[in-house]
Amino acid sequence: MSQMLTIALSKGRILEDTLPLLAAAGIEMLDDPEKSRKLIFTTSDPDVRILIVRATDVPTYVEQGAADLGVAGKDVLMEFGSQGLYEPLDLKIAKCKLMTAGPVGGAEPQGRLRVATKFVNVARRYYAEQGRQVEVIKLYGSMELAPLVGLADKIIDVVDTGNTLKANGLEPQELIATISSRLIVNKASMKMKHARLRALIDRLAAAVEQRN
Amino acid sequence: MSQMLTIALSKGRILEDTLPLLAAAGIEMLDDPEKSRKLIFTTSDPDVRILIVRATDVPTYVEQGAADLGVAGKDVLMEFGSQGLYEPLDLKIAKCKLMTAGPVGGAEPQGRLRVATKFVNVARRYYAEQGRQVEVIKLYGSMELAPLVGLADKIIDVVDTGNTLKANGLEPQELIATISSRLIVNKASMKMKHARLRALIDRLAAAVEQRN
Ligand SMILES: O=P(O)(O)OC[C@H]1O[C@H](OP(=O)(O)OP(=O)(O)O)[C@H](O)[C@@H]1O
Ligand SMILES: O=P(O)(O)OC[C@H]1O[C@H](OP(=O)(O)OP(=O)(O)O)[C@H](O)[C@@H]1O
Repeated sequence: MSQMLTIALSKGRILEDTLPLLAAAGIEMLDDPEKSRKLIFTTSDPDVRILIVRATDVPTYVEQGAADLGVAGKDVLMEFGSQGLYEPLDLKIAKCKLMTAGPVGGAEPQGRLRVATKFVNVARRYYAEQGRQVEVIKLYGSMELAPLVGLADKIIDVVDTGNTLKANGLEPQELIATISSRLIVNKASMKMKHARLRALIDRLAAAVEQRN
Repeated sequence: MSQMLTIALSKGRILEDTLPLLAAAGIEMLDDPEKSRKLIFTTSDPDVRILIVRATDVPTYVEQGAADLGVAGKDVLMEFGSQGLYEPLDLKIAKCKLMTAGPVGGAEPQGRLRVATKFVNVARRYYAEQGRQVEVIKLYGSMELAPLVGLADKIIDVVDTGNTLKANGLEPQELIATISSRLIVNKASMKMKHARLRALIDRLAAAVEQRN
């Protein structure tokens, strides 16, 4: 009997860039998840199903074993803390940078820096390493608004083209990490479904090689 | 000189239901925020501007004083913890229920209950009051998927029509709180801009009265 595999993905750029890699490994989605309200999708491989979840929820599904594997941005993994997961493959997709950003030409604020971000763990670690006291303000979206209305001096966010920052009078400042999406695998699955997962990882690795 | 007021709102049902109340208080938006990528909007009142932020971010903007007032669901306020905010008015809009839910006809699981929710503080408080040991699993979206794939036994989420639960083979179980949206006000603003805010709150209260 063959083993069922469950893959957790998120809509948007990760899905878009992961589907060709999965296709190269013989796994194709039958419906377009961008156009569906469904959350569970069958694939061309009857033993593989795909869950569509929030980007920030992918590590949770995989760590808890509700999915055997998934694709998550390094930014999300840095924030989640990935000790409970294997991260066997850099898919080299959805590349961007995790950066600090602030008002264009703005002077460094006096006193305690206020930093708005959804990456609060990353922010605390980053400034602690610099021995810098900061107030971290947790936001769930639209970080770029915070400096415009005095909620924070700076933000930490992912930057791709830089257009979002520019449109809001902000500029990228310090680089915290270069980001790409990673394949993550549940630790128990890696033991229990080893041959199956090993084969899939190898095929994905070959597809990544070929693409780059 | 008149005092500038900044109001924080979120897209979707809250915005839809708040705009008629604001209009009754003489404040109308000039652009449609549902159709714009802007985050800061002028209004028919030159001294009032509106910020469009994530629903979960509204209490942060108001507590920190980046907005003088805002509209937030009681669910969001219960999760945020609202000691740092005034909550002077129930707008009686965007009504729903915060509930536990689980598989239709599912038996109570043996052992430690696993509950998936974005309302982790609410969940911990709710089960602590019952003296019940639970594992709370933080999710950011699509809670209804969790029981279907074995991530959790139950979820805690807001329920309106119940269609989302039904479509996923789940049923509402315990009522945690009835929810509606509240006007929230920054504490310092309430002192510094008292007359202005008092007048606005009174006009909104009258509009709520008339609507109900
Ligand atoms: O440098 P840019 O090319 O402008 O890209 C940066 C934007 O992309 C990210 O948001 P994303 O579109 O991933 O969605 P989000 O707002 O849900 O985070 C990020 O939060 C910025 O808003
Ligand atoms: O009982 P129903 O009428 O089906 O409504 C319940 C749905 O509404 C809420 O989501 P919402 O649409 O607010 O968006 P969200 O998924 O971003 O939370 C909630 O999370 C459910 O998904």
